[in-house]
Amino acid sequence: MSSADESGLLTPIWAGSAVAAATGDAAVLQAMLDAEAALTRAQAELGFVPDAAAEAVGEVADVRLYDVRDIAVRARSGGNPAIPLVADLTAAVARRSPEAAPYVHQGATSQDIVDTALMLVASRALPPIIADLGRADAALARLAAEHRDTVLAGRTLTQHAVPTTFGLKAAGWRALVLDAVDRLSRIGPPAQLGGAAGTLAAFQEYAGSGSDEGSGGAGPALLREFAGQLGLAEPSLPWHVLRTPVADLGTALAFTACALGKMAADVLVLSRTEIGEVSEGTGGGSSAMPHKSNPVRATLMAAAARQAPALAVVLLGSLVAEDERPPGAWHAEWPALRDLLRLAGGAAASAAELAEGLRVHPARMRANLDRTGGLVLAERVAAALTPLIGRSEARAAVERASRRAAAEGIGLGEALGDERLPLTEGELRRLLDPAAYVGSAPALTDRALRRHPQVKE
Amino acid sequence: MSSADESGLLTPIWAGSAVAAATGDAAVLQAMLDAEAALTRAQAELGFVPDAAAEAVGEVADVRLYDVRDIAVRARSGGNPAIPLVADLTAAVARRSPEAAPYVHQGATSQDIVDTALMLVASRALPPIIADLGRADAALARLAAEHRDTVLAGRTLTQHAVPTTFGLKAAGWRALVLDAVDRLSRIGPPAQLGGAAGTLAAFQEYAGSGSDEGSGGAGPALLREFAGQLGLAEPSLPWHVLRTPVADLGTALAFTACALGKMAADVLVLSRTEIGEVSEGTGGGSSAMPHKSNPVRATLMAAAARQAPALAVVLLGSLVAEDERPPGAWHAEWPALRDLLRLAGGAAASAAELAEGLRVHPARMRANLDRTGGLVLAERVAAALTPLIGRSEARAAVERASRRAAAEGIGLGEALGDERLPLTEGELRRLLDPAAYVGSAPALTDRALRRHPQVKE
Amino acid sequence: MSSADESGLLTPIWAGSAVAAATGDAAVLQAMLDAEAALTRAQAELGFVPDAAAEAVGEVADVRLYDVRDIAVRARSGGNPAIPLVADLTAAVARRSPEAAPYVHQGATSQDIVDTALMLVASRALPPIIADLGRADAALARLAAEHRDTVLAGRTLTQHAVPTTFGLKAAGWRALVLDAVDRLSRIGPPAQLGGAAGTLAAFQEYAGSGSDEGSGGAGPALLREFAGQLGLAEPSLPWHVLRTPVADLGTALAFTACALGKMAADVLVLSRTEIGEVSEGTGGGSSAMPHKSNPVRATLMAAAARQAPALAVVLLGSLVAEDERPPGAWHAEWPALRDLLRLAGGAAASAAELAEGLRVHPARMRANLDRTGGLVLAERVAAALTPLIGRSEARAAVERASRRAAAEGIGLGEALGDERLPLTEGELRRLLDPAAYVGSAPALTDRALRRHPQVKE
Amino acid sequence: MSSADESGLLTPIWAGSAVAAATGDAAVLQAMLDAEAALTRAQAELGFVPDAAAEAVGEVADVRLYDVRDIAVRARSGGNPAIPLVADLTAAVARRSPEAAPYVHQGATSQDIVDTALMLVASRALPPIIADLGRADAALARLAAEHRDTVLAGRTLTQHAVPTTFGLKAAGWRALVLDAVDRLSRIGPPAQLGGAAGTLAAFQEYAGSGSDEGSGGAGPALLREFAGQLGLAEPSLPWHVLRTPVADLGTALAFTACALGKMAADVLVLSRTEIGEVSEGTGGGSSAMPHKSNPVRATLMAAAARQAPALAVVLLGSLVAEDERPPGAWHAEWPALRDLLRLAGGAAASAAELAEGLRVHPARMRANLDRTGGLVLAERVAAALTPLIGRSEARAAVERASRRAAAEGIGLGEALGDERLPLTEGELRRLLDPAAYVGSAPALTDRALRRHPQVKE
Repeated sequence: MSSADESGLLTPIWAGSAVAAATGDAAVLQAMLDAEAALTRAQAELGFVPDAAAEAVGEVADVRLYDVRDIAVRARSGGNPAIPLVADLTAAVARRSPEAAPYVHQGATSQDIVDTALMLVASRALPPIIADLGRADAALARLAAEHRDTVLAGRTLTQHAVPTTFGLKAAGWRALVLDAVDRLSRIGPPAQLGGAAGTLAAFQEYAGSGSDEGSGGAGPALLREFAGQLGLAEPSLPWHVLRTPVADLGTALAFTACALGKMAADVLVLSRTEIGEVSEGTGGGSSAMPHKSNPVRATLMAAAARQAPALAVVLLGSLVAEDERPPGAWHAEWPALRDLLRLAGGAAASAAELAEGLRVHPARMRANLDRTGGLVLAERVAAALTPLIGRSEARAAVERASRRAAAEGIGLGEALGDERLPLTEGELRRLLDPAAYVGSAPALTDRALRRHPQVKE
Repeated sequence: MSSADESGLLTPIWAGSAVAAATGDAAVLQAMLDAEAALTRAQAELGFVPDAAAEAVGEVADVRLYDVRDIAVRARSGGNPAIPLVADLTAAVARRSPEAAPYVHQGATSQDIVDTALMLVASRALPPIIADLGRADAALARLAAEHRDTVLAGRTLTQHAVPTTFGLKAAGWRALVLDAVDRLSRIGPPAQLGGAAGTLAAFQEYAGSGSDEGSGGAGPALLREFAGQLGLAEPSLPWHVLRTPVADLGTALAFTACALGKMAADVLVLSRTEIGEVSEGTGGGSSAMPHKSNPVRATLMAAAARQAPALAVVLLGSLVAEDERPPGAWHAEWPALRDLLRLAGGAAASAAELAEGLRVHPARMRANLDRTGGLVLAERVAAALTPLIGRSEARAAVERASRRAAAEGIGLGEALGDERLPLTEGELRRLLDPAAYVGSAPALTDRALRRHPQVKE
Repeated sequence: MSSADESGLLTPIWAGSAVAAATGDAAVLQAMLDAEAALTRAQAELGFVPDAAAEAVGEVADVRLYDVRDIAVRARSGGNPAIPLVADLTAAVARRSPEAAPYVHQGATSQDIVDTALMLVASRALPPIIADLGRADAALARLAAEHRDTVLAGRTLTQHAVPTTFGLKAAGWRALVLDAVDRLSRIGPPAQLGGAAGTLAAFQEYAGSGSDEGSGGAGPALLREFAGQLGLAEPSLPWHVLRTPVADLGTALAFTACALGKMAADVLVLSRTEIGEVSEGTGGGSSAMPHKSNPVRATLMAAAARQAPALAVVLLGSLVAEDERPPGAWHAEWPALRDLLRLAGGAAASAAELAEGLRVHPARMRANLDRTGGLVLAERVAAALTPLIGRSEARAAVERASRRAAAEGIGLGEALGDERLPLTEGELRRLLDPAAYVGSAPALTDRALRRHPQVKE
Repeated sequence: MSSADESGLLTPIWAGSAVAAATGDAAVLQAMLDAEAALTRAQAELGFVPDAAAEAVGEVADVRLYDVRDIAVRARSGGNPAIPLVADLTAAVARRSPEAAPYVHQGATSQDIVDTALMLVASRALPPIIADLGRADAALARLAAEHRDTVLAGRTLTQHAVPTTFGLKAAGWRALVLDAVDRLSRIGPPAQLGGAAGTLAAFQEYAGSGSDEGSGGAGPALLREFAGQLGLAEPSLPWHVLRTPVADLGTALAFTACALGKMAADVLVLSRTEIGEVSEGTGGGSSAMPHKSNPVRATLMAAAARQAPALAVVLLGSLVAEDERPPGAWHAEWPALRDLLRLAGGAAASAAELAEGLRVHPARMRANLDRTGGLVLAERVAAALTPLIGRSEARAAVERASRRAAAEGIGLGEALGDERLPLTEGELRRLLDPAAYVGSAPALTDRALRRHPQVKE
């Protein structure tokens, strides 16, 4: 390992993950080789190059034959890794079959290869991400169903507000997971093929009279065949400077990381020592403190959610791609796109683990609710009093009692008792039962659980 | 006008626009009033409040009766503008009909009103944006068809590469416009209604036995009725902390501003004094230089594209919304969402003007192409020579000639003439005709023009 | 108020503040007029224009004579507000003194006026920001001194870790406030004067032989005089496209908002219902819940900290300003810079209020510490045991006891008692006293309090 | 090389650079080992641990003895790489000297090690960055001096405005380079040492009565000694959650990348085929087009400037670090800080090469100026006419002539000739000489060249 290499030491969110392996430099270089092989194969299928050439290229399109670090460094002089790779690939083909060498990369431009490779990498990295989101979906559905009626404090602006249910909370997390699945499933990464300036001219030139298709036909036919060879979508136009596919990937991946960040944020709050309503299945240790059990998955997910939007900015900004290939906007996309795949992938894997292992503590939820002595029912009491004494007097009475309860450390019920309100003790007790004031939470949970991921046609 | 007010002095991209008027403070406050009126009306429809109360609220739900600046300043103490507005609205209702006053805002929380209002504002601002994109679409389709075969230099990394057509370039701009239309049309802003912690509990409490619906029924019924009253989508869950609608709006609007930024970037390049291939219909003047005619629409669009992604970051980041109402993430959304509507709206209006007025100069395009004496055909000559002398010798010969042409200031044809190549002068002349080397550009243009905006069901 | 106007309805962090008034459209337009007046005055001082002209311009350089909204809308056609303002100013001067009119804006370019005006606005907005930070500094110093020895739980990754003091926490907040003051105080906004392309050529041309200074002298002399008239710094070069002053302002202001965000984040945690260790002086109310007292200043500060970095991105990105005036990068700066001034200003004012009013609850801090039955001393016990039984056995014993304590709901002392350790009961009790394990916290607090803001020479 | 590893394939801006080697995972792990060794050494110096223990740790503090990838993957379970490293280091020490093992990492927390290591990495990466900026500074100073009087078109909003000099342009680039040097030189990365919650308590506990310093003294003394051992600055407080050092590094590095982006942007414009006023020393090749010579360094620098601000956002946002160690904000910093070092470093190295090799073409500059037939002197002619025929008539005459010149393709001089102006042909010819209208450009260049980098005391 060279001293400049990265293996995830500073990014535990994805170190060692399936998505990391699918997006490393070797994976990218393999995808570039796959693109080169598919290009020659597609030209052979259409009769533009000999089958033997396609076979020769295919035989050496194996990343293990190339020196990734050397290609990375040589990429500096032309600004992209396709240039040195084409040189090395051509030499490798020539060693095997000199007459095949001229057909390597025929008619293509560097961007055809790099863009196609990154879309291949994305198409390979998305299924494990979606699978992990599927695990999170299933685990959260179970949690929501199991805790459909588990009452805990609803908290707004950090303060106890009114009761809610843990089922509704978990159903909300799951709704965001499904939103992410829907957005990622909608992505169909396209192949890229346009030649030097996106007109497909050189492909047509090389096809020459060998093509019996009409004017403009050889190019689009090749584009279709090329995409088909790789299992990527066929774009309606070369998209060298129409970067919708990259921007869409960027925003869907950032959405995923941030949507999972909501679950992480809630777990971090609910795990606080003083709150203790949930715990991660296995907490993280500490190098200093023997007693610590940290919410480490939620921590890493929170970190991912802080990084992802900034990377999406780069990809949105790169839509502003001047000319037929922009000097900078294109190059800035590469690391941002990879990092987003890794962050979303790491977050999805952590979310699956987190949801599957989460331990929920209903007794603690109830104890925390009780701690405020009925204050979370203040809104309800005011509502019940409104028809009896008018809204403003109802609200005023509850505010007075709430303040007294807080100041004197007594329960709201006791404080209300002194307000001489037209409520019997039994009515008041019923009103102050948190479990009886969760509104539509269970019904909403049921409704949310009837939603399923959109199946992509 | 107070000294703290803004009227667009620093944001000419949207000053005076329809979207600006649809998104100003008065428009937001009116939308909040509309939300309050619809809430009481929906409760009346379901029999939870008297019809007279709904009428009374409706009668004073007019922004002209309120002091926007005063409400803005009073919003500080509770952190949001709904709190002072509810106070002023209740007082206004009470003046007209004291018995109606208690029904104002009944069961709702501030976030119900602010979120619903911002979605109303978005739903009112989106149609003019989409309409302006439609104008840009139409104008660009005309330009693409008209210039289907107009040849100009394809430029990559700032250098002439190979020829392309202005039709393909305009078709590409239009493809991005349609991508933006598709994304914005997909947005259906939802109403927000959840009550204090998203359980709809207070609504159900106030509905009391007056509602003959089953457990959990009054809340969801009210949510449906409320959304229907406002013409907004009905969400499957209250989304106080499930911020997908805001994140989606944010990314679609930032996409729009940046997609239009591509057209702006190209116009800025092609308008350069030395290039001069297009001009804005009416250029901008200068306070210093009498001769200037600046590409001012493209300039302002480029500025919008620089600002929009940063605002989308804020909205993506706000997905990480802890608890049942987050302290900060929610509040940070408000100005970011408005500014994005304004930037996208201003950019769309400018894009429409830009596309409708753009003057294209084919003679200048041809002159610029000719300036490099055939160098943009270097790739083609190499391709044509490959079957005759082999690929590497073909490329080497063209590179030698290209270098000589550049060094000696002669045309590529002349330089190639000295290379003793197996090509007749006529063949060489044909190869060096830029108009004959645009590949599939016209066919791709035709194909792109067959695409139309997706009609939203 | 026009329906497009903004008065802070969506930005309670700064609505009604001194910085808002110093940065509104009218304030910006006044600063532009101040720049125009200073320019003519400076030229008069150097003998390039008649004194009467300077007087005439000075007399109408009053924003109340101009229609801000009209100028904002007319700015669209040239892309900046200086063009319509110069027209209106020239007309106003001409009405008063026709012979003075030609001297208006003589030799200048729009960017000279807009840049200078924004620096004037910044120089007027910074003192109230720094003053509010000074209030926060003083209040936090008092809190730190007062609570030098107040023990509370140190929390890491949301879990109780080891004890710390509230004094050290407040001293840390103050250190960040001083860091912000130091960075803002270092800013000396420069005047801008370069003429059409930054060469000062037209000034020199108009100065003509009337100037007896040598070649190149009239321009720099005017730049110095102009800056002096306005009390702004004299730049060593016109900075039309050398945007260090704007980038520096942007990062210092974003730093300020985010540094204050740390205090807000801590207050939000410590205010949680279950924690309750601090309260804002006066909490925010709720439109739904009569009992709520929300940490509203901290909430708004947290929102500011989420927005500010995104705006700084725009300003950093605008360093990439091509040519002698960039089409877009410059225009994107204007609203971002104003919004940053407002966010930092609003956050500073809120921080001052927050710090001055903060209520600290030492008893609750102690109760929370005690809740974990000594677990926060686990590290200490392990340290004390290490010389007695070796490090790994010490750590293992404490881990076992910690797990038992958590599982059985007993104190760490009790659990350790069963471990047969070579510690007397008295030693153990002493080791488990949180107040005796705050390390250097008081000493560090004292040391931090000896730091004072750097006085700017 | 594992398939997940990165070696710079997607980041040619820094692939193979000195900064890359100084910041790779192995370099980070070595810095962590250096921190651990310095900690034990510092404790030995103060008499808190045996000298032999410090020697034993020092002997195995060599990254080649550890498995970086394995540590990276194991970092997931605790959320940071210090935890597995401490385990492996302790084992390595124990193999060599069992009695030394308990002293490894004594009293420290993971953040002490990770933060210190990243500051060490920064302190090692900054000198090569500053050195490369020094090379750029020297080369640009030469260019500015050499081209002090080389005239070219000043361009604003993409259009020729008035003449300027290449010397002033290069002096401006250099001013930004010096601004970057000043900001980077001001950075003095501090060591981090606070123990579990920043109170230094465990260090003091372990020091026990062995320390004869007063209350609170052992901790601060150790902090000073530790920083001294590593050559890092001594902070006044542990900064676990006072992230000024990281934010400052982030903004200074982003500033650097963006400041260099200005030079890149100008080179990209001036290199355009139609403009051709500068060329990179050795242009980049193309995989498709034999004739291309691309401005590849400027392209990669432009890409860096697009990425850097987004990363700075993450670091500014991480100032908002709640409690004594935040769950996420801290973790998000690590990759952002490394990437910023690499982007700034790659950009600085590219800037040095670019400046040293830049070829300037004064004849082409003059030809481009002449192409507009004197239009760039329009402002000057208007100025000269003002005293003769009044300002508004002067401006009107020049506007008429400018329009005619553009429309009829004639020179401004010819067009002005028909305006019957009170100027002789000789006067007009003199006014239309671009070289005589560069204002203070040469004087400003001289002045800018007298500035030198601030030497850090």
